[in-house]
Amino acid sequence: MCNDRSREAGGVVDETVLPAVTMQRPRWGDPATVTELPDVARALAGPDAPSHPAVDPADISLPESAVPPEARDALVDALGDAQVSDRHTDRIAHTRGYSTPDILALRAGNATDAPDLVVTPGSHDDILRVLEICTEHRVAVVPFTGGTSVVGGLTPDRAGFAGVVSVDTRRLDKLLTVDEISRTATLQAGLRGVRAEELLRAKGYTLGHFPQSYEGAGIGGYAATRSAGQSSAGYGRFDDMVEGIVLATPRGTVELGTAPKSAAGPDLRQLVLGSEGAFGIITAVTVRIHPAPTDRVFEGWRFDDFAAGAAALRTLAQDGPMPTVLRLSDETETAINLADPSEIGADAGGCMVIVGFEGGADDVERRRTTVIATLTRLGGTQQGTAPGEAWRTGRFRAPYLRDPLLDAGVLVETLETVTYWSALADLKAAVTTALTDALTGQGTPPLVMCHISHVYAAGASLYFTVACPQTADPIRQWAAAKSAANTAIRTQGASITHHHAVGRDHRDAYHEEIGPLALEALRAVKRTLDPAGICNPGVLV
Amino acid sequence: MCNDRSREAGGVVDETVLPAVTMQRPRWGDPATVTELPDVARALAGPDAPSHPAVDPADISLPESAVPPEARDALVDALGDAQVSDRHTDRIAHTRGYSTPDILALRAGNATDAPDLVVTPGSHDDILRVLEICTEHRVAVVPFTGGTSVVGGLTPDRAGFAGVVSVDTRRLDKLLTVDEISRTATLQAGLRGVRAEELLRAKGYTLGHFPQSYEGAGIGGYAATRSAGQSSAGYGRFDDMVEGIVLATPRGTVELGTAPKSAAGPDLRQLVLGSEGAFGIITAVTVRIHPAPTDRVFEGWRFDDFAAGAAALRTLAQDGPMPTVLRLSDETETAINLADPSEIGADAGGCMVIVGFEGGADDVERRRTTVIATLTRLGGTQQGTAPGEAWRTGRFRAPYLRDPLLDAGVLVETLETVTYWSALADLKAAVTTALTDALTGQGTPPLVMCHISHVYAAGASLYFTVACPQTADPIRQWAAAKSAANTAIRTQGASITHHHAVGRDHRDAYHEEIGPLALEALRAVKRTLDPAGICNPGVLV
Repeated sequence: MCNDRSREAGGVVDETVLPAVTMQRPRWGDPATVTELPDVARALAGPDAPSHPAVDPADISLPESAVPPEARDALVDALGDAQVSDRHTDRIAHTRGYSTPDILALRAGNATDAPDLVVTPGSHDDILRVLEICTEHRVAVVPFTGGTSVVGGLTPDRAGFAGVVSVDTRRLDKLLTVDEISRTATLQAGLRGVRAEELLRAKGYTLGHFPQSYEGAGIGGYAATRSAGQSSAGYGRFDDMVEGIVLATPRGTVELGTAPKSAAGPDLRQLVLGSEGAFGIITAVTVRIHPAPTDRVFEGWRFDDFAAGAAALRTLAQDGPMPTVLRLSDETETAINLADPSEIGADAGGCMVIVGFEGGADDVERRRTTVIATLTRLGGTQQGTAPGEAWRTGRFRAPYLRDPLLDAGVLVETLETVTYWSALADLKAAVTTALTDALTGQGTPPLVMCHISHVYAAGASLYFTVACPQTADPIRQWAAAKSAANTAIRTQGASITHHHAVGRDHRDAYHEEIGPLALEALRAVKRTLDPAGICNPGVLV
Repeated sequence: MCNDRSREAGGVVDETVLPAVTMQRPRWGDPATVTELPDVARALAGPDAPSHPAVDPADISLPESAVPPEARDALVDALGDAQVSDRHTDRIAHTRGYSTPDILALRAGNATDAPDLVVTPGSHDDILRVLEICTEHRVAVVPFTGGTSVVGGLTPDRAGFAGVVSVDTRRLDKLLTVDEISRTATLQAGLRGVRAEELLRAKGYTLGHFPQSYEGAGIGGYAATRSAGQSSAGYGRFDDMVEGIVLATPRGTVELGTAPKSAAGPDLRQLVLGSEGAFGIITAVTVRIHPAPTDRVFEGWRFDDFAAGAAALRTLAQDGPMPTVLRLSDETETAINLADPSEIGADAGGCMVIVGFEGGADDVERRRTTVIATLTRLGGTQQGTAPGEAWRTGRFRAPYLRDPLLDAGVLVETLETVTYWSALADLKAAVTTALTDALTGQGTPPLVMCHISHVYAAGASLYFTVACPQTADPIRQWAAAKSAANTAIRTQGASITHHHAVGRDHRDAYHEEIGPLALEALRAVKRTLDPAGICNPGVLV
């Protein structure tokens, strides 16, 4: 059940230990990876889709760097000349994030949101100094780790500021300490997820955090956006993993995490987690770690329909034990994901559940035995390890499909939400209808797929993938669909985001979600830590 | 293994379904319960301890009620005459909390901290109105559910205020909704823990929250102080159970908990949990619930010493599975708790671990099998169910011992802290030394006992019980010991409280713990929600 690659210290080698990738905006992932588009995907463009060739990033013209010379000089004084760049490639590489609208804009040659400067501080104190300088000169600051935001988290307001500086934390890339007794590690915020995992594996541990953005994203971004990884059933969400956090603000340092749990006032770690750069820049986190797994089983299960599958996931989430990975595709996603739908067993159709276990041999065996009994009792049928391994080994390939789809004239984007179990079916129906109606109304009837990938005792996330032929203005096309989905989500009383965060794109819905008084409280926190309002302005609050 | 009492809907009957108790301050618990002091406890007073008879509460003289007549009239208009009281019994019943210094002060006839009025609003809107009136007239407001604070959480600053009103939430005592699909329940904040459990058991569920203060405390207090119950290993801490929370503030309502988990900004529920009345009054919470247990096994285990026992608890917390109750007494506490030390097996001495399982039959059996294997492998020896049942059936009796101990001239008090596993042994030694030295230096060498009662993957709590002969001024005597312990805790880098909260007593240490910038951020939140600063002034921030 394990692949045949060699073992390394403390665990099975698997696809989660990957080389660091240098992406070339606007395209996702390792440029050496060639992605063949399946025919079923290419067909989504339909016969009439206009062609949308991408402008070569090197040919995109940028506005002149607007940061005042005295601010730039101060940054060079503080960091050294090599760490302050207005080079075209650096500015393009820090322009916006990786949402489909972000990509479409850059493909169309629009880089109006490019930062004026990209700085690469080497330490927490460097970052404090950058924040001081930018406060003095009223320059907006955007924290940047992997740059993979899909909600406009890297596109600050320019109005009222003398310029925008992207603070790339890539040089804060150390595993600072490992506490093997407490099973915690302190990681610098600029560590990419891939590299953090590599460093921990070398010591026999895993972080267990594998979001879809894994090849690009980093520790600081995980913390700032409350990321959730594909193994959240087993290892938890990122905000659940964090024991300590260090935040550099324009007014100095906030350091939290005296103890794992405490009754010493509100848990202020949870005020920094999810703050999306609005209060300052996270520079380090202390997280729980786990022995690297020695054993692994990933399997497929079939349920007759989404409701039956969801009830099974709910039972596991409420009664335990939990596998490491647990996800349920709806009927549409199940059919699309299977090259040959007959592979799902004698009965075609139905819904696929992926159930993955990682850990020590005894632990995997013990959990798996009980999970098998539960899923069988609830109407599931085992499909063997082939679908599980197919999902596992391809788990980071989905984002690679978007660029060739856009090339082919297919609009493709994802969105996600979360609610309580009792509200899940209505939420799924309402969002599906909203997306379908909004895009069909534009003459481009979509394919809407959905899965549950994160489950809790009280509820679960819904993740939607939408694909349809592009219109002449695909950014506007998607904006209408997204707006309809947001309205449906909020009308159903669900949260505007489960793990993509707020950024700019979810800001209005977020403010409605928490209400005006809570928003005022958040703004009061921001004013305290960032009196000049330079920290990622326009994002979150 | 279950007791022979009848079963009720959905679960075993046990001692956690208790009648509501009307305590008679300053004494703890059901007045009908007679507590015989064991000789070993009585002996702690030593031969020379002065006698400290308690003043009859009825004889304590109170300052005249200071609330301005127009504020009182407005409260009567809003709530009705019957819900606004300045009766002697009501004011005494809402004077301070249940720390030993609080009890000693009331026993000595000191009720200078009595509220001027006690009001009993019947709804969230009533509470909003009370906060408005008190803001207008600059009257301080103390929220009161069970009144069991042991950290001065019910003793507000009077300076600068026209009076103090205790807002007793006892009329907000409803189980509002049960969502059986999502396994959540919405409870009003004034529900006493005992009554909440009774209402849930009638529907086949349990909340699973059983703090030592269970007979007195209530839902609002649990939430405001981030309470942890004796079954935290199985059911989690109270702040972990909360999915939604409603806060009445002087500026209106904050309602949080759109979804169980979300990436929509910081988790603001965690800003209200632990806010100790400083931002307003919690009026309702939505919590996770669990099927009432049908099976139960409580057992004792012996380890050679505290270090071996702690290592075993750590292994369970890190590798699972967890029992429902897990606690380790140190050598001193183990010896004291055993009427006959020979009961702990052939080898006298050592440390007792209580391991309790509750749940469905399969679940209890499955977890227990693995836990037995783990504890045996780590050097534990099974002591059978007698010590487990003795602990379980006596679990709420410990607080009853304090009053007769004080009567007998014994000073007794508890304190608690929490840290990471790697720092636990040093913390225990430092606090024990600090307490021993501070009290021995006053001529009253103490008995210092310690246990671990709450474990996490990364760390654990330490709970100390201290007993020694009283001096002529026991409040001052304890203050010196507590101050020494606080210094030791902070010097060791641990948190000033694991589950007792901050109140007034931990305020300075708390401010040091979170640092000046985080404190400013908290104060900014308070100013936003409570601009006049009437909410529990002097507590927390």
